[in-house]
Amino acid sequence: MGVPRLPHLLGIEGLAPETISGLLDLSESYIDQNRSIDKRRDVLAGRTVMNLFFENSTRTRTSFEVAAKRLGADVINMDVATSSVRKGETLLDTAMTLNAMRPDAIVVRHHESGAVNLLSQKVNCAVINGGDGQHEHPTQALLDALTIRRRRGSLEGLLVAICGDIMHSRVARSNIHLLQIMGARVRVVGPPTLMPTDVDRMGVEVHYSMRTGLKDVDIVMMLRLQTERMQGSFVPSISEYFRFFGLDAEKLKFAKPDALVMHPGPMNRGVEIDSEVADDVDRSVIQEQVEMGVAVRMACLDALIGGRRNALSGAAA
Amino acid sequence: MGVPRLPHLLGIEGLAPETISGLLDLSESYIDQNRSIDKRRDVLAGRTVMNLFFENSTRTRTSFEVAAKRLGADVINMDVATSSVRKGETLLDTAMTLNAMRPDAIVVRHHESGAVNLLSQKVNCAVINGGDGQHEHPTQALLDALTIRRRRGSLEGLLVAICGDIMHSRVARSNIHLLQIMGARVRVVGPPTLMPTDVDRMGVEVHYSMRTGLKDVDIVMMLRLQTERMQGSFVPSISEYFRFFGLDAEKLKFAKPDALVMHPGPMNRGVEIDSEVADDVDRSVIQEQVEMGVAVRMACLDALIGGRRNALSGAAA
Amino acid sequence: MGVPRLPHLLGIEGLAPETISGLLDLSESYIDQNRSIDKRRDVLAGRTVMNLFFENSTRTRTSFEVAAKRLGADVINMDVATSSVRKGETLLDTAMTLNAMRPDAIVVRHHESGAVNLLSQKVNCAVINGGDGQHEHPTQALLDALTIRRRRGSLEGLLVAICGDIMHSRVARSNIHLLQIMGARVRVVGPPTLMPTDVDRMGVEVHYSMRTGLKDVDIVMMLRLQTERMQGSFVPSISEYFRFFGLDAEKLKFAKPDALVMHPGPMNRGVEIDSEVADDVDRSVIQEQVEMGVAVRMACLDALIGGRRNALSGAAA
Repeated sequence: MGVPRLPHLLGIEGLAPETISGLLDLSESYIDQNRSIDKRRDVLAGRTVMNLFFENSTRTRTSFEVAAKRLGADVINMDVATSSVRKGETLLDTAMTLNAMRPDAIVVRHHESGAVNLLSQKVNCAVINGGDGQHEHPTQALLDALTIRRRRGSLEGLLVAICGDIMHSRVARSNIHLLQIMGARVRVVGPPTLMPTDVDRMGVEVHYSMRTGLKDVDIVMMLRLQTERMQGSFVPSISEYFRFFGLDAEKLKFAKPDALVMHPGPMNRGVEIDSEVADDVDRSVIQEQVEMGVAVRMACLDALIGGRRNALSGAAA
Repeated sequence: MGVPRLPHLLGIEGLAPETISGLLDLSESYIDQNRSIDKRRDVLAGRTVMNLFFENSTRTRTSFEVAAKRLGADVINMDVATSSVRKGETLLDTAMTLNAMRPDAIVVRHHESGAVNLLSQKVNCAVINGGDGQHEHPTQALLDALTIRRRRGSLEGLLVAICGDIMHSRVARSNIHLLQIMGARVRVVGPPTLMPTDVDRMGVEVHYSMRTGLKDVDIVMMLRLQTERMQGSFVPSISEYFRFFGLDAEKLKFAKPDALVMHPGPMNRGVEIDSEVADDVDRSVIQEQVEMGVAVRMACLDALIGGRRNALSGAAA
Repeated sequence: MGVPRLPHLLGIEGLAPETISGLLDLSESYIDQNRSIDKRRDVLAGRTVMNLFFENSTRTRTSFEVAAKRLGADVINMDVATSSVRKGETLLDTAMTLNAMRPDAIVVRHHESGAVNLLSQKVNCAVINGGDGQHEHPTQALLDALTIRRRRGSLEGLLVAICGDIMHSRVARSNIHLLQIMGARVRVVGPPTLMPTDVDRMGVEVHYSMRTGLKDVDIVMMLRLQTERMQGSFVPSISEYFRFFGLDAEKLKFAKPDALVMHPGPMNRGVEIDSEVADDVDRSVIQEQVEMGVAVRMACLDALIGGRRNALSGAAA
């Protein structure tokens, strides 16, 4: 209503609560009937979505591809291995080249924080951040929020512990923004060596032990140990890490009796999470997160380039 | 008719002859008009087929992709190179993750025997074995059977020689099962070092020379020399191998005058087969096998997840 | 009209001017409305296009994929990394295998000159050369021609300088053929060590300095420095190369005041072209070339396998 529509989805930071609620509501609209795919083919019929992935990813790339195809879009995949970037072309030249082929949206994953924002300034199609460096992974935060909201009704007032390698995690960053915008309280839990240097300015409670960190929380969000991003910094011993920060049935007892267990995947079983907890159908919603991922990405594509693209307002004032 | 329908296609072993005949009949229904693709778009419209390949393959992956698209399905490809498996995720977590995105079928190729069966127990969609280790490659056996049946009218009573590296060949294993179920007699021919240790329990005639092995056979099925799977075991000298077991015009004379020559591809010309024989349009049906491959995979997808999915019965009683 | 229709697009050499004009006219027919994609879905509905790329390429493969999908075709991508060629299969066996799956067209990029022609003789579908060795890259020349024609009205009588690594460039070769067929005059400009040995028989003016080479030209076509194809031959020092042959604002002054600047991409900024010139919106048409690429590939697919496939005549008499 007079508010500018969402041109891109680059991060959660700065989004209005109404925008987030709107995207979650839109996601819900696909869920009950999400096996009856045919009926949505018109939403993005004739639209082209490009997946430009500079980092490997099964789940995120596939989830976007499934989402786009369920809405009837054409999908073009580009992996870094087959990219001209290897021939020395700059990111921005790649972006402008793809843009000239007139896609309706580009989903970008890149190993450098800020690369997706930069790219979005050079194109005139919608850009969705599929994860950039240690910065943001907004659709992951949205699918986590949708999973929680469907189980708890609302995010407001919930106490959420995000546990593990906070420093290297874009998932943590996007979730902290989203949970705070929607009125949840956030704790981060992990060893001091895996805390971001700016953790004091994040508005979160910081805990260095699972015992105090998980106490009475509604939600336990485990993070993947991003050993591949730990070059030059502290790489913990796996068995030590698991003993102190791996989620097992013992540590989970610190949380509320019905606390939900979440993980963005792919899991390192026996490192940050024990199989007994990961596979506990009463507590773990890890598979449900993946399911919600498709719905959330359908909603984002619809909101940005589909029929609903005028239904949502843009960034917070 | 009261018989449970086929939930997966994991192997040929244990299938009823009626199931095999039914799949071949269904394959036939696509063949005469297989250039008039439009008309079949409705069979799998709105369905999603995932190709999950842990081993490279041009022909099998492409054949499944062509088949699925001809029937109107969406196809999502996942190669191991871009898979989170490289991040340490287990096969079963990958399977459950993909399953949560609600595909209708997953086609899996994996380098370990039994991996596909294991995976099928963790998902609630149809699973098709695209080749697992040295275990089975059921669609290859079905396309071989279709090729033979169209040329000879029936498999019953035919004498078939499967030649070469029997030990490492899933193609051999699936073909032995299928041919025996359908009433053909099977010989295996190769050096003792490339015979499986359990060959005596396979119900086949074992020959260590092409002269006796090919004598009076109706069909000569050559196998690819799987040097990539021969780690630690006997790797034959190429020229020695060709001299004794490579199919050339001289050795082909041992077979019946109209015996058909088959090869699952990709061929090592000059190793297991001579170009003169491979390209002999009167005898070689190697290209026809590839053509039949698309029809067979259309039938399998149709039978498992398409409109015909109630038409076929399941495993043998 | 009695002239045989175009069965393949293997190169520009030998095409009739009417064939080229016809393809450019057909390309134009997609341009004004090329965001209204739905309306063209019928042109290649039910057709299958295979992209068989033995060399990496973002822009060419993606451009063909976008073009084919805009016309409603199914697209199957095969990269060399996932190809059975790595298992020792010959190019021709790969070709015959893919052909047996009944695609309507195969787009082939290969690192050896002549490989695409060879392949086209073994299949009964249309073959489009997506670039072969140092031989031809016909769709690049067509998109360059379309870009020029839309800016200048006609190619006839224009003076065009092709600059840089002429020796290793299939883009140069295809453009020289096309420009001469359509009545333009061509200069090639570069160091003696990067001139082809047969340059004297190409019917072009040869210049070894940008000062004389660019003098009064209408069009400046820069080439990518193909360092990856320079094994064993002269590899220039980058800074020396840029000083003498890199296009910057100073050197561009030798050309006509309104001369257009072109580059096939991906660009090596600061090597063969300066960013100031590459990004000059008044002079550089580099992004426009990419846009025209999609239209030209739509036209080629349409002319070879779509509804217009009888509209164009074949090779010159």
